[in-house]
Amino acid sequence: MKTYRHNVAVHWGDTDPARIVFYPNYFEWFDQSTRLFFDSVGLDWDSLARKYGIMGLPIVEAKARFLAPCKFRDEIVIESQVGKWNDKTFEVSHAVLNRGVRAVEGYEIRVWAHRHPEDPERLKAMPIPAEIKAAFE
Amino acid sequence: MKTYRHNVAVHWGDTDPARIVFYPNYFEWFDQSTRLFFDSVGLDWDSLARKYGIMGLPIVEAKARFLAPCKFRDEIVIESQVGKWNDKTFEVSHAVLNRGVRAVEGYEIRVWAHRHPEDPERLKAMPIPAEIKAAFE
Amino acid sequence: MKTYRHNVAVHWGDTDPARIVFYPNYFEWFDQSTRLFFDSVGLDWDSLARKYGIMGLPIVEAKARFLAPCKFRDEIVIESQVGKWNDKTFEVSHAVLNRGVRAVEGYEIRVWAHRHPEDPERLKAMPIPAEIKAAFE
Amino acid sequence: MKTYRHNVAVHWGDTDPARIVFYPNYFEWFDQSTRLFFDSVGLDWDSLARKYGIMGLPIVEAKARFLAPCKFRDEIVIESQVGKWNDKTFEVSHAVLNRGVRAVEGYEIRVWAHRHPEDPERLKAMPIPAEIKAAFE
Repeated sequence: MKTYRHNVAVHWGDTDPARIVFYPNYFEWFDQSTRLFFDSVGLDWDSLARKYGIMGLPIVEAKARFLAPCKFRDEIVIESQVGKWNDKTFEVSHAVLNRGVRAVEGYEIRVWAHRHPEDPERLKAMPIPAEIKAAFE
Repeated sequence: MKTYRHNVAVHWGDTDPARIVFYPNYFEWFDQSTRLFFDSVGLDWDSLARKYGIMGLPIVEAKARFLAPCKFRDEIVIESQVGKWNDKTFEVSHAVLNRGVRAVEGYEIRVWAHRHPEDPERLKAMPIPAEIKAAFE
Repeated sequence: MKTYRHNVAVHWGDTDPARIVFYPNYFEWFDQSTRLFFDSVGLDWDSLARKYGIMGLPIVEAKARFLAPCKFRDEIVIESQVGKWNDKTFEVSHAVLNRGVRAVEGYEIRVWAHRHPEDPERLKAMPIPAEIKAAFE
Repeated sequence: MKTYRHNVAVHWGDTDPARIVFYPNYFEWFDQSTRLFFDSVGLDWDSLARKYGIMGLPIVEAKARFLAPCKFRDEIVIESQVGKWNDKTFEVSHAVLNRGVRAVEGYEIRVWAHRHPEDPERLKAMPIPAEIKAAFE
């Protein structure tokens, strides 16, 4: 199973008056990691949209557990894996490592979604092609 | 059980090229709701710090399920409740309502934490006073 | 000349370890004010795009002077006016008032832009219709 | 005169429904550049606070001109220089280069400020030591 490593420098503006990272930023970094991970295996979402007709890979669930704070100037790494494939959804797990310490762990669940055939405003979940799954093994 | 309602206008800058709210923003609104909720019952965290010696109410877990997208100019309401009190932690549940539609639901788990007596850099979870719990009933 | 007033509550996540608003947020609030101002006079940009063929009103310049800090829980007001109309651009002035104190003052210059007739990737500045200017008087 | 180069990858969440960078982000990157620049010459602001008693280097003015849009996946460089030293303030100029194209140019003016001797809530601008200026030449 492939692992993607996304290096993030914690900047002053990412932190709050408690002098630690304001937690929504971790989800922003999760989103970055997932997209960069797909890019890195040659499956950027623009080309997936053209080839398969998907409308991105919308988020359906996100969760994080905060184990240790990160601070201004910390150089963190987000380690991501596609940990679980379902028929129409998949889970990307993310771990934030700060100098070897596991600071945050979480996941995103995303859906393989086409435009709904009867309502262009809605999405319709579809089975994920096998070659997509294979690219992350 | 009290419910706090936090009105949020979705601005252009909250949305992404898919023309929907970029999901980390929901967690930012969750954080706002929790703090406003405590303010609204007279338990702003600054006064709690002075009275009880806590170091804020740090986040230990956050989760959201995304049910329907929100868009630029949507006027949403975040409905929050302290849904569960544990000995040293509590869970604030949040539901995002968009014109009556449940768009997002999630929660935050936070901890009642003092400065650690042996290491000022660390926190130590402590039992939550009964009067804090009572204020949200 | 019309004035638009945009009320903003300063949230914890808008502030930094110096316990004051992290300055890029003021520009985010300027952008919100300008769009809400246009909405308030019946000239939302979506309808302008349909009627006149413009591609939004892209920013060409933004500036702010920071006179006094704003803090968590401050209830500020952004007062905006379209202070100057040029042939193809206009300037929206913004003042941030915090309990009567002028905390920030700045402006945005935006351009009335169509899709370029020879290159759909580019924009072409065009003269601003008189009725647009009149709506802000 | 020294130049600092800050590499920034434009992420999906930095862009808006017009598919270009939402402009307040450029100011966030300016702030990052200025702090990293000071770090790079051995003058991180924490050590300056300890040595000289300053309260950070608060922003007093920021401006940007937007010349060309940046998009998701663009790898941009912010080139920064301390372009002008006044007695108590200085100007950091920033240019955003996107594949050789000058996309944004701007500056920040910041002040060398101590805690005010008569009011700890206020700041007092003070003359900038010569060795600080020398470090950027």
